[in-house]
Amino acid sequence: MPAIAYLECSRCQNQISANKYETVCPKCAGALYVRYDTEALKKTATRPEPGGSQSMWRYASVLPDVSPVTLGEGWTPILPSRRNPNIFLKEEATNPTGTFKARGMSMAVSMARHYGLKKLAAPSAGNAAGALAAYAAAAGIEAHIFMPKDVPFANYLEGVAYGANVTLVDGLISDCARIVNERKEKEGWFDISTLKEPFRVEGKKTMGYELVEQLNWTYPDAVFYPTGGGVGLIGMWKAFEEMEQLGWVTGKRPKMIAIQASGCAPVAKAYKEGANTSQMFENASTFAAGLRVPKPYGDYIILDIVRQSGGTVVDIPDETILDSLLDWSRDEGLLLSPEGAAATAAYDHLIENGFLKPRDKVVIFNTGAGLKYVDMIAEAMGVTRPNSTKLPERVPVGGIITPQ
Amino acid sequence: MPAIAYLECSRCQNQISANKYETVCPKCAGALYVRYDTEALKKTATRPEPGGSQSMWRYASVLPDVSPVTLGEGWTPILPSRRNPNIFLKEEATNPTGTFKARGMSMAVSMARHYGLKKLAAPSAGNAAGALAAYAAAAGIEAHIFMPKDVPFANYLEGVAYGANVTLVDGLISDCARIVNERKEKEGWFDISTLKEPFRVEGKKTMGYELVEQLNWTYPDAVFYPTGGGVGLIGMWKAFEEMEQLGWVTGKRPKMIAIQASGCAPVAKAYKEGANTSQMFENASTFAAGLRVPKPYGDYIILDIVRQSGGTVVDIPDETILDSLLDWSRDEGLLLSPEGAAATAAYDHLIENGFLKPRDKVVIFNTGAGLKYVDMIAEAMGVTRPNSTKLPERVPVGGIITPQ
Ligand SMILES: [Zn+2]
Ligand SMILES: [Zn+2]
Repeated sequence: MPAIAYLECSRCQNQISANKYETVCPKCAGALYVRYDTEALKKTATRPEPGGSQSMWRYASVLPDVSPVTLGEGWTPILPSRRNPNIFLKEEATNPTGTFKARGMSMAVSMARHYGLKKLAAPSAGNAAGALAAYAAAAGIEAHIFMPKDVPFANYLEGVAYGANVTLVDGLISDCARIVNERKEKEGWFDISTLKEPFRVEGKKTMGYELVEQLNWTYPDAVFYPTGGGVGLIGMWKAFEEMEQLGWVTGKRPKMIAIQASGCAPVAKAYKEGANTSQMFENASTFAAGLRVPKPYGDYIILDIVRQSGGTVVDIPDETILDSLLDWSRDEGLLLSPEGAAATAAYDHLIENGFLKPRDKVVIFNTGAGLKYVDMIAEAMGVTRPNSTKLPERVPVGGIITPQ
Repeated sequence: MPAIAYLECSRCQNQISANKYETVCPKCAGALYVRYDTEALKKTATRPEPGGSQSMWRYASVLPDVSPVTLGEGWTPILPSRRNPNIFLKEEATNPTGTFKARGMSMAVSMARHYGLKKLAAPSAGNAAGALAAYAAAAGIEAHIFMPKDVPFANYLEGVAYGANVTLVDGLISDCARIVNERKEKEGWFDISTLKEPFRVEGKKTMGYELVEQLNWTYPDAVFYPTGGGVGLIGMWKAFEEMEQLGWVTGKRPKMIAIQASGCAPVAKAYKEGANTSQMFENASTFAAGLRVPKPYGDYIILDIVRQSGGTVVDIPDETILDSLLDWSRDEGLLLSPEGAAATAAYDHLIENGFLKPRDKVVIFNTGAGLKYVDMIAEAMGVTRPNSTKLPERVPVGGIITPQ
């Protein structure tokens, strides 16, 4: 595991030391990247062998030197679609806590323990909270979580089950973020919010390493990524750069497709308008809870990456998301998260409008388990609890029967 | 992949051909095992190399010759406990549909497609239904599912989302089984119930192969297995026998510990009484839904294996299950299923009474994701939905606040 050379600002390239757990760039508040000594890394980093660790820590040689707080995260399956073998679903549902958030939190909580932090705080649309709570529990660190009061119930329950201090907020994740920000100094919390510290990106970058390794160290033509905060997209792009420097992969990088929900599409709007940053998206609303981020902190990075890659930003209405979710559950046997289903819907859209061809090799991220959204998917489908007399409308069902 | 030599009755050793998808022994209705030509197998079967398939199909050389219906099942993490590195948690939550049932259904639905079946039916305590629905969807086969009406909501929702025909029954799984049995002939359904066909065991046996491979081809001292229908326990024992014949492992087999809920403990009762089969357990009730099987079809096999292995059967009250569930979530960062938590509680119990020592190496199965039991865990914890004004009693929580 390499030493960190310095932290670098994603906006002004300011370099600062990693002697303590830093937050954002002290000059411009830009998000910080972890940087290594590339020449040293070339000597020590090794492409993982088949076998080896079955978690994201198989990439330890390109991750900070730390004792991992691990629950078995990463090294998730990449599943070829039944309808077109050029479509690969990257199935992040198999992570601990059921979502891709586990990768970032495993890395960040490992570093928090390394730096001796005792109290972590974060606003969350839901899944980051669950992951933070789990890794904090494993590390014996306090977690303070602020979530919108209408998060999926699973997110709420896992927070309290893992022993985190959970506060529900009658507002959006942006309100939650403000509360953390206002209270953190007095409470002695370290703010582990998306992109307000450098290590969640560093954990999420393993998705980029994995998809390239799983495609035999080649790039796909496009990567579909449901984009709320956008940390994974940013992390994967960093991974591609690192892998090229190390000579682990060559060729044209994939088109990066950022997917948002039409009900909360600040980055899609900025992309269409040719802007470099997004505006706060008013009245954000979508059942894809993880996409309900009305102004992502890393908007400028996301927009830059999408444009550099020749990709695009697509926004999908909730109804189309649900249709794609049911399409994939019924025809592929995979119950996607609404965020993942937004990505599969975006694929259909980009095939339809000719942006991509069916022969293009694509990786679509299902960022989490549909099982974490049982209440929201049920509501969207019009399915009520079994004990109710109301029966599903859109689905065949035998009803409730009483045996004789 | 080897050809099947014959199917063998687990009770009377009757041998029958595998030319079609068989159900149970035509002579005595015993459960059937898949048998291969051992001498031929010794020549063709190979211990998987590190790397290779990251699913249970890495053991293809000891599984029936079939084109797999796969969603990435198996090859799940084995996680050392933070409190005692001799305790390994086998984390089956990372399977497709979030439980170990995926293994059996991947195998059985693969065989169903192979044999040309078009309509499958099964009674289920919940998780088998979700897995059947998913694999049937992937295979393009009809699924007809009968579940108690108070199954976890996630099980109900996944059934309908995968497009299965779901019927809820005002009764227990035994009532569901009776309904399937009564209707199957007329409807043209193949009954894929636990142990009423030979291939779910064959899929589940991969748990035995995996835990031995993950312990570097050695046996642990004990295996803790939450036992509803007991297919996994039966499958693992079969795996141990096969591996010994192939010379893949030697030494003393693990003590097999079958765990039941005190509210539904037919096998525990039979074990204590020295009986060879169980009696229907009246008024079965436990929040560990998967353990609510009042008379397992394979009771005689389970009891035989437990005794052969020098193991035992333990039953755990719901309150103790919940305590262990919270213990593991708060101290290990893992949200177990109630069934898994029954197994961790059983471990504590057997350490306390001296049956096992802390230095014994044990594998504990968490058979599914706690996330599939959100409603039941919440109820057991006294946690209500976030929008409610009632707040959790047993957990620290900040309440709901409205930002200014
Ligand atoms: Zn800066
Ligand atoms: Zn027989």
